[in-house]
Amino acid sequence: MSSNWEQLAADKQTRINDSIPEEWRIQELPTEDSVFDFPAKSGLLTDQELSITGSSATDLVQQLAQGKLKAVDVTIAFCKRAALAHQLVNCCLEFFPEMAIAQAKELDAYYDTHKKPVGPLHGLPISLKDQLRVKGLETSMGYVSWLGKYDTTESVLVTVLRKAGAIFYTKTSVPQTLMVCETVNNIIGRTLNPRNKNWSCGGSSGGEGAMVGIRGGVIGVGTDIGGSIRVPSAFNFLYGIRPSHGRMPYAKMANSMEGQETVHSVVGPMAHSAAGDLSTLIVKDLRLFLTSVLGQEPWKYDSKVVPIPWRPADEEAIKLKIPDGLTLGYYACDGVVLPHPPILRGVETVVSTLKKNGHTLTPWTPHKHDFAHNLINNIYASDGNTDVFKDINASGEPSIPNIKDLLNPDIKQIDMNQLWDTHLKKWNYQSEYLEKWRELEEQLGKELDAIIAPITATAAIRHNQFRYYGYASVINLLDFTSVVVPVTFADKTVDLKKADYQPLSDLDATVQAEYDPEAYHGAPVAVQVIGRKLSEERTLAIAEEIGRLLGNPVTP
Amino acid sequence: MSSNWEQLAADKQTRINDSIPEEWRIQELPTEDSVFDFPAKSGLLTDQELSITGSSATDLVQQLAQGKLKAVDVTIAFCKRAALAHQLVNCCLEFFPEMAIAQAKELDAYYDTHKKPVGPLHGLPISLKDQLRVKGLETSMGYVSWLGKYDTTESVLVTVLRKAGAIFYTKTSVPQTLMVCETVNNIIGRTLNPRNKNWSCGGSSGGEGAMVGIRGGVIGVGTDIGGSIRVPSAFNFLYGIRPSHGRMPYAKMANSMEGQETVHSVVGPMAHSAAGDLSTLIVKDLRLFLTSVLGQEPWKYDSKVVPIPWRPADEEAIKLKIPDGLTLGYYACDGVVLPHPPILRGVETVVSTLKKNGHTLTPWTPHKHDFAHNLINNIYASDGNTDVFKDINASGEPSIPNIKDLLNPDIKQIDMNQLWDTHLKKWNYQSEYLEKWRELEEQLGKELDAIIAPITATAAIRHNQFRYYGYASVINLLDFTSVVVPVTFADKTVDLKKADYQPLSDLDATVQAEYDPEAYHGAPVAVQVIGRKLSEERTLAIAEEIGRLLGNPVTP
Repeated sequence: MSSNWEQLAADKQTRINDSIPEEWRIQELPTEDSVFDFPAKSGLLTDQELSITGSSATDLVQQLAQGKLKAVDVTIAFCKRAALAHQLVNCCLEFFPEMAIAQAKELDAYYDTHKKPVGPLHGLPISLKDQLRVKGLETSMGYVSWLGKYDTTESVLVTVLRKAGAIFYTKTSVPQTLMVCETVNNIIGRTLNPRNKNWSCGGSSGGEGAMVGIRGGVIGVGTDIGGSIRVPSAFNFLYGIRPSHGRMPYAKMANSMEGQETVHSVVGPMAHSAAGDLSTLIVKDLRLFLTSVLGQEPWKYDSKVVPIPWRPADEEAIKLKIPDGLTLGYYACDGVVLPHPPILRGVETVVSTLKKNGHTLTPWTPHKHDFAHNLINNIYASDGNTDVFKDINASGEPSIPNIKDLLNPDIKQIDMNQLWDTHLKKWNYQSEYLEKWRELEEQLGKELDAIIAPITATAAIRHNQFRYYGYASVINLLDFTSVVVPVTFADKTVDLKKADYQPLSDLDATVQAEYDPEAYHGAPVAVQVIGRKLSEERTLAIAEEIGRLLGNPVTP
Repeated sequence: MSSNWEQLAADKQTRINDSIPEEWRIQELPTEDSVFDFPAKSGLLTDQELSITGSSATDLVQQLAQGKLKAVDVTIAFCKRAALAHQLVNCCLEFFPEMAIAQAKELDAYYDTHKKPVGPLHGLPISLKDQLRVKGLETSMGYVSWLGKYDTTESVLVTVLRKAGAIFYTKTSVPQTLMVCETVNNIIGRTLNPRNKNWSCGGSSGGEGAMVGIRGGVIGVGTDIGGSIRVPSAFNFLYGIRPSHGRMPYAKMANSMEGQETVHSVVGPMAHSAAGDLSTLIVKDLRLFLTSVLGQEPWKYDSKVVPIPWRPADEEAIKLKIPDGLTLGYYACDGVVLPHPPILRGVETVVSTLKKNGHTLTPWTPHKHDFAHNLINNIYASDGNTDVFKDINASGEPSIPNIKDLLNPDIKQIDMNQLWDTHLKKWNYQSEYLEKWRELEEQLGKELDAIIAPITATAAIRHNQFRYYGYASVINLLDFTSVVVPVTFADKTVDLKKADYQPLSDLDATVQAEYDPEAYHGAPVAVQVIGRKLSEERTLAIAEEIGRLLGNPVTP
């Protein structure tokens, strides 16, 4: 059995490598820790291709809609850069440039005939996490046992994006099981962070993080049940949004623990923080994605989608408040694990910048995050991990190291009445959190617009060191909307290791001990902006204001 | 143990009876089958009290807001009539006129001071199903073992209604477990249909059905996980709405199988079909309730509520379509059990009336209702009925007859992976149904606005004969919005028993055999108007148009 899984994985690697045309191959792979600038310097991309892949999605669709760019040219540019990305950071589980170029040609033909785009994403390549099904392609999701099964159905989000005019060209790598925030599987191994090979690209949408991070993609589609959109966004200095459950269509996507509904995985976009000369800030690419999907009325396809079209009035409400100042809560420590110095400085930077610009910042007391973090961990394991081990064991492949640490073999499946009790605990906790939110509003005499917080305890982390998911996962338990805003980069000259720190727990001690100013130097630092459930318009508008005030740099 | 439960039930009966003031007692109970007209003829209510209790909620809140009526007078009128209702049809588990009158006095004092109402329901008495918690009162929900526990928390809906100005005065009876569509428990016995004691008032919100049916209430709050708002609405010739999950706040209500989230119970209002001289049609009372609750932003209290305020534009969209005709699907038989002749005539009446008035009616093929009905039955029993039997057995009380038939003692609890599989089956089924909806729209070249269908296979049913829940419960599985529209009354001269009927199944044969034109003569007949998930505004507007065209009578 064991030789068989290795052969299956090797065959898959060959299939992926064979999908890269000869002329897009890198002759000599760089040896530096960072490959971030390689595509620009390689000479493999033309100036137009560099310009296209350096643009924002918003600019690209505008130029495509005006006929100033051809879908084929945009598609080839991203396919080439994605091919380099895969060779550099090992991020693709599927790469299908021929299908993409064929789709682009059809769109160009449509445009030539009708003199108008098919939809708001006409001709825009979008990269997909390998949970989304495209007919004729494999969805392995990092399980060797799933290899060789070719999809005969299409995920609703793929259908809807296709109707809006999007082009698909790659499905990116994920960790085995999807349940960890680094990206390692036994099919292609580990996906690396383009900014430094010693850092994780994050996970589980880590392939997307790396791909978009190195501009092999302009918008990536990730999913998030415990940080999986937000962590790779943070680690690659991207914007990303975890919409609340029911805003975006998830139907017919593959998943681990499919059918588990106590905490829903959600799907959402990841996008660049800047484009062109890097002075154009583009959180607006997230908006482009969300409005384009909602414009297709996804609730008519996926029963879990709530029928809420994009609400410009909600964005407007935030914009109207800005001159008088927004009211924002914030916390730097959740009371369980203290973030590393770069993250503490990141939160402080956002808070002081906002204050300086007339916004009201008020400390938020994280309500029972330890309880919530334990509760969601128990939810993830509510079937005693039967489902994930079934898929791992089916091929004989071993567990990846992160899984070995994460999934306790002693854990038992809970029964139906214990599950119902868990549901009540979750609902009560969510309602308590809303009560705290209302209480603060009453105290302040005004609306609390959002909460600023860390996403992870660390800047882009070193491999195999991701230990604490609570900053991200508690927000999943609450089902709040969360937008990642990139802030700064770890700096060994200012982010000094804490002396004489009294840890909150053993876990906290381990995490603190792993901080090394030298090793983290230059690693991306981000915060999340947290809004109430289904507050995508408001929370994105707030994130946009924060990004504007920070004036995001793109490199340290 | 057994003598103990009987004593506990007897004590509770005494507490309820003692809550009725001497002067509201009926000296000689009527012996006729129908007590529908008793309150008007009894001489126990003044002309003003009869006028108040004969009004619509919409008219009452208007007069209260204008100071033309006092909250105290309105409250006393409904308390008196509710007291008669309980004596006539046995519908209260809690009756607390003193608390209600005290609340009314406070509201009147507020009005005197501020010259304005506290909210849109200022001074309006609303009756509550005995799942809603009010501080200081008992919530037994028909379980003897729950008696004597007095609530220290308040359901979010109660809080929100209270903020809107509503007054509470009674909590009405439910069947043991809530899981059946008749209303029988071992605490107070059976609740009867005011129109005929031989008919069921429906269930599980049967106490509400009977109470509002005899105008002891003007708006009743029911819940629905398999027909429990719609069946009692239908059996008492009321309007009722089953909103989709997440539209109305359910937090902190009591429930059977609390924490079960595969199919959510939802809460919604039941209201009269006409008021005053009975020519004023008042589906608008449902709208009053929904808009008043949503006006309090319940999503800030209950995490499960979606932040969708009332959407007048959606109602307007329907009104604008009406001149050119709505497009409606319909079915009279779901392919599992053929409804009795009065129901078939009810559907036919609605269809022909709508056609005559320029609307497009097109047959709808019920998609796999047999599968869906079985799936939801399995979901109800997913814990092997552990939860309900725990509460039944805790006092030693026996199961009610309906439960004995319904809950198979051989049923086993399913495990987590089987539950997840069930979730996927449900989601796929829901999405298939949406696909059928889209297909019909494509075929017709226009939007399908709603579907007309039976709610039950029978008109208001005779006791212990409710056997088939599929007409109602499949809509719960789909989580579609559904509004009950009362249509007509069974008529022995036209609704003849079918000769030589070839039954679809044994169950169908049993149901058909139980049709007796004589016994059902005069029993209320209704249909449901089914809209997509969270389409309350549109579906209510369509129900309003149907009601207007039918010109609802209130008695045969």
